Amino acid sequence: MTAPLPRTIRWVGDTGGHLELLDQTKLPTEEVVLELRDVEGVVDAIARLCVRGAPAIGVAAAYGVVLGVRARAPTPQTFLGMVAEIANQLSASRPTAVNLRWALERCIGAAAERPNVDALLAEARAIQSDEELMSRKIGEHGAELVPEGGTVLTHCNTGRLATAGDGTALSVLFPAWRRGARFEVLADETRPLLQGARLTALELQREGIPVRVLADGAAAGLIRTGEVQLVIVGADRIAANGDFANKVGTSPLALACHAAGVPFYVAAPMSTFDLAVATGDDIPIEERDATEVTGLHGARVAPEGVGARNPAFDVTPHHLVTGIVTDIGVLKPPFSPHIKESAAGSR
Amino acid sequence: MTAPLPRTIRWVGDTGGHLELLDQTKLPTEEVVLELRDVEGVVDAIARLCVRGAPAIGVAAAYGVVLGVRARAPTPQTFLGMVAEIANQLSASRPTAVNLRWALERCIGAAAERPNVDALLAEARAIQSDEELMSRKIGEHGAELVPEGGTVLTHCNTGRLATAGDGTALSVLFPAWRRGARFEVLADETRPLLQGARLTALELQREGIPVRVLADGAAAGLIRTGEVQLVIVGADRIAANGDFANKVGTSPLALACHAAGVPFYVAAPMSTFDLAVATGDDIPIEERDATEVTGLHGARVAPEGVGARNPAFDVTPHHLVTGIVTDIGVLKPPFSPHIKESAAGSR
Repeated sequence: MTAPLPRTIRWVGDTGGHLELLDQTKLPTEEVVLELRDVEGVVDAIARLCVRGAPAIGVAAAYGVVLGVRARAPTPQTFLGMVAEIANQLSASRPTAVNLRWALERCIGAAAERPNVDALLAEARAIQSDEELMSRKIGEHGAELVPEGGTVLTHCNTGRLATAGDGTALSVLFPAWRRGARFEVLADETRPLLQGARLTALELQREGIPVRVLADGAAAGLIRTGEVQLVIVGADRIAANGDFANKVGTSPLALACHAAGVPFYVAAPMSTFDLAVATGDDIPIEERDATEVTGLHGARVAPEGVGARNPAFDVTPHHLVTGIVTDIGVLKPPFSPHIKESAAGSR
Repeated sequence: MTAPLPRTIRWVGDTGGHLELLDQTKLPTEEVVLELRDVEGVVDAIARLCVRGAPAIGVAAAYGVVLGVRARAPTPQTFLGMVAEIANQLSASRPTAVNLRWALERCIGAAAERPNVDALLAEARAIQSDEELMSRKIGEHGAELVPEGGTVLTHCNTGRLATAGDGTALSVLFPAWRRGARFEVLADETRPLLQGARLTALELQREGIPVRVLADGAAAGLIRTGEVQLVIVGADRIAANGDFANKVGTSPLALACHAAGVPFYVAAPMSTFDLAVATGDDIPIEERDATEVTGLHGARVAPEGVGARNPAFDVTPHHLVTGIVTDIGVLKPPFSPHIKESAAGSR
């Protein structure tokens, strides 16, 4: 256990201030904090995954709107159009996570009510504190799922680095550990960008929770042989029927859990639900650059001239999901009616 | 298409000669041929995966016996005991692949009949040419499975670098391509040691077969959405009921195929069957060093102090397997009676 990490996202000062983002591409080797003063920098930081995780990119984008509008000094007449334009620019930075669009819609709503930068900053701060609260509530609702003395497997990073609070899937583990539950975590390394090996391992190690990493392909075998008692992951978008998109490599974990009778949970705030999307097949899946797969840390792995398929997410069908841990409680199958009801109640 | 790769395994000269192995840990960047003159070098080369692939390590080990016995100049009285002792040393280098033990048992059998180094070298050469023939026959039996105009997904490396001939799973693709079938291959990169990205991509590229690599976790999603028409993999050991061990990350492919109705085939010579093992649960799974996962190309990825689970193989249950392509034909479910019958006929 060493010093805590710098804050994932921090706005410094008033409307004349700037946005600080912990550059997650450099972790765990270096702790570099980016100071961003324009929207282009925020778009770039989201696209390059300096900040990532569905809730966190929503919060970062909201501050990005403040920076973008501030630079262009709109009149009250042009204000709303400009906010919408800047929101579009930010929204295009990553297509799959719906929290990004959810946060941007809140910014547009705030601008429609009060067309000034103060109101936008207040809204961005409210989004950040709402996401922080949602993290805490997810943790409270999910903590009882953690198997005492058992092993929990997770994928990608869903902790403080992915949200404004303690996380989504990891936010379930932190309070359980603090209350004295003892368990081990297996963290899928999560190729291609290794958010599990780099970020999840780091967060759990700093909290004192025993963690080992593994190749993504190794998870299914360990689930089959009974080494894992709970799999819990985050989500980037949940469709109206409970199908969900999450970091590529999630769906084979769900298949393995289903085959072995191991509980498979998703943890996500209500901002991750998208009722406009009927099933997982309608969720757009971001294809990222082939070099993320053909190379590793700057060194080429595949032969020169060989390309890659690099979808950043996959879709897990709802029938493989044991439950969805949200800030308003744990949803159980059949998901469809619960999702419609819960989303209506929370908005 | 460039120059062909050096031979995977080559014995140079007569009983006074030496063993050449293409060092696969250096591919695709460098083509380094190891010249081995003692059994310790062969044990080390197998353990470090300079030579890998179940059939190939069997062949390399047989030549290792020649080198080991030659160095100790046994008498006819001590010959057989010494061969058994050296075979044990080689057998311990990797526990999962049964072809290694199959080849070593053939060496012991040859030594029992004719206790001299000439006979051991002749047996090693016979094992190599038998494995080469088995590769060719697997290719003949399996070529018709290749979906014209479709996409084939494979895992790890099962080509010339893994066998004495054209391969196992890849040996099905080469003759189909040469006869004019056109298809694309998606090669799982195969963490931790990236045999797919480094070796399979290289072999297919040199043959002119279109290939792209992908993160192991990405395969299930592409199988689910219909982008893949055939998955074919190798095997390191097949139990009497058809369960099989193969490179870690194989079993989630089988689960994804089963869920999506995509054919999932295994390709392996009869030397991969182990009737002494009733089910996959009885196959020993090698756990390799954690640093293979925590680091990449010498650079540390996970935080200092974080360890790893690193099983090198997983077990796929037989009920997920569409068929097993062997040198004596394609076995179909129910596997158990066919395996017993085929194994009896081929030995």
